Amino acid sequence: MKSRIEIRIRGYHSDRFAHVNHARYLEFMEEGRWTYLEDNNLLDLFLKEGIHHVVVNININYKKPALVGDVICIETGVMKRGDRTVTMLQEVFSKDSGAPVADAKVTNVFMDSNDGNILKIDKRFLDLWPDLREIL
Amino acid sequence: MKSRIEIRIRGYHSDRFAHVNHARYLEFMEEGRWTYLEDNNLLDLFLKEGIHHVVVNININYKKPALVGDVICIETGVMKRGDRTVTMLQEVFSKDSGAPVADAKVTNVFMDSNDGNILKIDKRFLDLWPDLREIL
Amino acid sequence: MKSRIEIRIRGYHSDRFAHVNHARYLEFMEEGRWTYLEDNNLLDLFLKEGIHHVVVNININYKKPALVGDVICIETGVMKRGDRTVTMLQEVFSKDSGAPVADAKVTNVFMDSNDGNILKIDKRFLDLWPDLREIL
Amino acid sequence: MKSRIEIRIRGYHSDRFAHVNHARYLEFMEEGRWTYLEDNNLLDLFLKEGIHHVVVNININYKKPALVGDVICIETGVMKRGDRTVTMLQEVFSKDSGAPVADAKVTNVFMDSNDGNILKIDKRFLDLWPDLREIL
Repeated sequence: MKSRIEIRIRGYHSDRFAHVNHARYLEFMEEGRWTYLEDNNLLDLFLKEGIHHVVVNININYKKPALVGDVICIETGVMKRGDRTVTMLQEVFSKDSGAPVADAKVTNVFMDSNDGNILKIDKRFLDLWPDLREIL
Repeated sequence: MKSRIEIRIRGYHSDRFAHVNHARYLEFMEEGRWTYLEDNNLLDLFLKEGIHHVVVNININYKKPALVGDVICIETGVMKRGDRTVTMLQEVFSKDSGAPVADAKVTNVFMDSNDGNILKIDKRFLDLWPDLREIL
Repeated sequence: MKSRIEIRIRGYHSDRFAHVNHARYLEFMEEGRWTYLEDNNLLDLFLKEGIHHVVVNININYKKPALVGDVICIETGVMKRGDRTVTMLQEVFSKDSGAPVADAKVTNVFMDSNDGNILKIDKRFLDLWPDLREIL
Repeated sequence: MKSRIEIRIRGYHSDRFAHVNHARYLEFMEEGRWTYLEDNNLLDLFLKEGIHHVVVNININYKKPALVGDVICIETGVMKRGDRTVTMLQEVFSKDSGAPVADAKVTNVFMDSNDGNILKIDKRFLDLWPDLREIL
């Protein structure tokens, strides 16, 4: 299940051009992913199963600057699974106009908390994480 | 000319796993790019020519976590030029061991400060920015 | 009217000891003050009246660390007015236990947007900002 | 021995008014204190002695905004010792003009890493930390 958060852009989010700074977007995205994991009950399941997720790649497009006072929405879902990776898609857009602000593809691997080995995205994952069943 | 900065990882850079946070790396990378622009005298030239640069994409790989106390090096250079884009390559590695920590490809466009139009990477750019002559 | 926000502590808020970093609290406090200004309709009024507020002092006590997963509440109100200053009190506590986490006294001055002069906290301010009438 | 660091203000340090954000100053101050601890060899000594320092109060004055391109200096020393506290003074000024930008008094307590008890600032501390002998 996709999740969605809203953030009102403040002066302290933005740089001298009144744009949200590049690094700050990554914090917004991280907030979006935590919310996704919570909404899908995955934080507790991963903890219980001894699964630790690690971001290995972020590919972010900056499209249209968000300005102070704007409310932005961040929608987070899964877009792709590999043998040992899951890639999430995060889309940021203006709540008011719907105009796209940024998007990011965030690729994760999953480690066994005990031995640090990278886990295969196998049946166990598909059982824990229903969204994974609907993508390739 | 490639440029290089060094940063000592502090407690306030790192998250609960003693790893540097994803967003923080983007600030380190930004520091690296400003230093590159200064080392290559481009900040002043761009200002004088009315050129404003804008990051449109960052593609960052997280390889091996940097830990508190580590000194990391960030090397910044240009790797590719398109018709209207320049992509910089930034490599982060441990000063001590040389082990790769992260790398990022950062794609920029350049706007005319007066009319906001995206500029072609033409002869003027190659004259201002010698590194561009050596790449495709 | 006092205002209140809630924030769930995330991994990216916290440092290597799983504590929220000192600087991050100041961002939380800033979010609390923006919300206070909005809740009291002051953002629009200040803009209309050409009043620009500037923080001149923050005095923050760190009491009990907030940990990842905790939800903290931040209550913001006014506590004191001087001839040319207004001091806000911000109290941070655990939503769950009510235990105090931090508090800050934040002193502001107000500038005339046109000439940059520091304004007296006079009748105009008391009219715009009812909370000020109830404190010294 | 007082220590000193220099920081060049970048676009990503500053907010929409081209001022360095309040929270960012606290990171600069933290960098200054880590450098002080290193310059005075205290990081290693504290670790060896099982002493963990904790900030309990920061009182920061914002005087004159630092702007993008400015180089600021941060000088850090000790200013006061109590029965169980040490207060450090950090002064931020423009490298170019010497004009004061901000200052902060940062009060620390010191915990026994084993039992978490707050330690007295006794002879052991004065031996480890010569600067403490010269203040009250």
